[in-house]
Amino acid sequence: MRWTLPPERVPDAWFNVVPHLPTPLQPPLHPATKEPVGPDDLAPLFPMALIAQEVSAEPWIDVPGEVLDVLRLWRPTPLVRARRLEQALGTPARIYYKDESVSPAGSHKPNTAVPQAFFNKAEGVTRLTTETGAGQWGSALAFATQVFGLECKVYMVRASYHQKPYRRVLMELWGASVVPSPVDDEQHPGSLGSAISDAVRDAATRDDSHYSLGSVLNHVLLHQTVIGLEAKEQLTAAGEDRPDVVIASCGGGSNLGGISLPFVPDEGVRVMAVEPSSCATLTSGRFDYDFGDVAGMTPLLPMYTLGHDFIPPPIHAGGLRYHGDAPIICNLVQAGRMEAVAYPQGKVFEAAVQFARTQGAVPAPETSHAICAVIDEALLAKEEGAERVILFNYSGHGLLDLQAYDDFLNGRLDAST
Amino acid sequence: MRWTLPPERVPDAWFNVVPHLPTPLQPPLHPATKEPVGPDDLAPLFPMALIAQEVSAEPWIDVPGEVLDVLRLWRPTPLVRARRLEQALGTPARIYYKDESVSPAGSHKPNTAVPQAFFNKAEGVTRLTTETGAGQWGSALAFATQVFGLECKVYMVRASYHQKPYRRVLMELWGASVVPSPVDDEQHPGSLGSAISDAVRDAATRDDSHYSLGSVLNHVLLHQTVIGLEAKEQLTAAGEDRPDVVIASCGGGSNLGGISLPFVPDEGVRVMAVEPSSCATLTSGRFDYDFGDVAGMTPLLPMYTLGHDFIPPPIHAGGLRYHGDAPIICNLVQAGRMEAVAYPQGKVFEAAVQFARTQGAVPAPETSHAICAVIDEALLAKEEGAERVILFNYSGHGLLDLQAYDDFLNGRLDAST
Repeated sequence: MRWTLPPERVPDAWFNVVPHLPTPLQPPLHPATKEPVGPDDLAPLFPMALIAQEVSAEPWIDVPGEVLDVLRLWRPTPLVRARRLEQALGTPARIYYKDESVSPAGSHKPNTAVPQAFFNKAEGVTRLTTETGAGQWGSALAFATQVFGLECKVYMVRASYHQKPYRRVLMELWGASVVPSPVDDEQHPGSLGSAISDAVRDAATRDDSHYSLGSVLNHVLLHQTVIGLEAKEQLTAAGEDRPDVVIASCGGGSNLGGISLPFVPDEGVRVMAVEPSSCATLTSGRFDYDFGDVAGMTPLLPMYTLGHDFIPPPIHAGGLRYHGDAPIICNLVQAGRMEAVAYPQGKVFEAAVQFARTQGAVPAPETSHAICAVIDEALLAKEEGAERVILFNYSGHGLLDLQAYDDFLNGRLDAST
Repeated sequence: MRWTLPPERVPDAWFNVVPHLPTPLQPPLHPATKEPVGPDDLAPLFPMALIAQEVSAEPWIDVPGEVLDVLRLWRPTPLVRARRLEQALGTPARIYYKDESVSPAGSHKPNTAVPQAFFNKAEGVTRLTTETGAGQWGSALAFATQVFGLECKVYMVRASYHQKPYRRVLMELWGASVVPSPVDDEQHPGSLGSAISDAVRDAATRDDSHYSLGSVLNHVLLHQTVIGLEAKEQLTAAGEDRPDVVIASCGGGSNLGGISLPFVPDEGVRVMAVEPSSCATLTSGRFDYDFGDVAGMTPLLPMYTLGHDFIPPPIHAGGLRYHGDAPIICNLVQAGRMEAVAYPQGKVFEAAVQFARTQGAVPAPETSHAICAVIDEALLAKEEGAERVILFNYSGHGLLDLQAYDDFLNGRLDAST
């Protein structure tokens, strides 16, 4: 069963969770002075419109018509009830998922890439730089810059650049220029943190260029709230008062924030982050100010962190290999408004295969973390004989991750990591 | 702009074009006796329900509820207006496409894989065999047999087995067993025709097994008519009386038949098949009885053919590399009710890149043939200053064909083939 909405129901305002946070959000600090950063500190990297969104306390922020026009290429996305998975589990729980895999880039990432490209163009920027790991974010920004006629330069983690050529091709198909990172050491396999350093350095030293980030920051999570806002309307259409629990995987926090933040003010709705055991920021990191990148060029962010020099093992869920998390997500976890769990990738791929064999759709490794927690919640509901409404974010498809499934099906995957 | 339909609007009867054909359909002939084949001749390979559909002259045939339940995992599919492509072309034409890429397997193929698996299971068959080239059809059947708990054995053209491992992984993820074909010659790169021979031989020699074909036959095209039936309802919702022209690529004819056959009785609706120049069956083949496979094991079919021993060049649109075409399609072309055009793959990939850069979505090479003809029709409408409604079938996505795009973008593709 699927619930769709007509194009005019794409939300025309983003939901800002900041006024609803249990405790005030601590500001980012300047890396040199350790003072709160001001708009001028961020201006070399971001347009003023996004900086204003980053610090806004307004409860709603309008989505420009030009952005809506592009989002409507694939939004509203369907809400799907995973009945065949429910039946396979024999659970009384009702499992719904928001299918963000239907976007051109195959994930939720274009929800923020499109407005970021738009606001940059509106302020005269003609070129964006960014980093990408496996390529989900890079391909989303390549698509968005293509739409608005901007140049796009993507620094791709070198190991992925060579091992996962398909997402590179996708970026180039949409007109982006892609180079392996780090740019100054051809022998280095690279990491997300060092690719961020490359992209920030590029943007900071060119007048025509800004930098674009695909997660972590407040304005990124803000743009993603279209997911949760649509899901609320669709759940009502499906006859549900509210979900008992909202679940999403968490790397930097953007897909989790997107589906869950609109539910934060709602009493009785649990919210759950799902991490990889090998990079368990929320469940085993410490809460502290830390850099967003390896080189220490970004502002210091208040977040759970494993240390900005932490290099996670090379699990297949590349999008979850980040040492920190969005300050908004960390605020909610610290205040007890959000739960967090972690799973090793073997259990995650078991869940992914069960999902693919019941529902048909092949989930991304990142998304499969959420599915793993959903299955555990559904089995708990079965044990307790409790009807329960579970909502999760199907953040992306796994069609460009089939090598990982091949490894898992043939016993070549390190299951305990 | 997208038009969706609620799940209950998946058509509950298939449209049978046979009563509407301009001239009677000639029967298939037994390869030995050259007499029309009877149901008993086909019984070793197909269940009686499908054989009955193959020869039916009933105008409508009911879709079983169990089939509808599975189709509703992704159907109804969206009808999309390609406004950004229209704008890029500066055409007064209104271009709509039916997005069949949203199925689990990423193409229209599951529309027939699901009922074929269902009807086989209903008659006690526990195992299906089939052939596949690049893997679109094989993955669809793997998905469908997984849903109904049947075994599935796929004979995959050896060259593709080694060069395109991702669709093999997809089949294995859905539980199918995949082997390279031909099975008796490990040095041979294989062809679709010889893989059919392998799969037919397997099914004919085992009591528990039947054979399943993904195109060409009447019952396959019948199952695909859900595409055109939904499109009719959605075009009405979009405010259009009728399309002026319906366009689809043509390999064996199933996606073309699916979208166009429900429009065959409608006056003033042109119907157009689009072929690769390198395998231009309808535009340069001869109309004759010919075998469906290389080894000459299948019945003789009345069709345009390049000869059953014709080996097309290795173009990227693997799904269009077939020496013949569906007898229903050939009947319509011969009678003048359907047009046919052919394009070389360089022009096809130019069209594909223009589509991906305007609409975002990345089309399969097969689908891109249709897009190429759509662009030419839209430019003709511009030249003539004519409003025109163009409908085409977006038969599948190209996410597992990105190597072909890489070749094209870097000048490694044989554009003139």
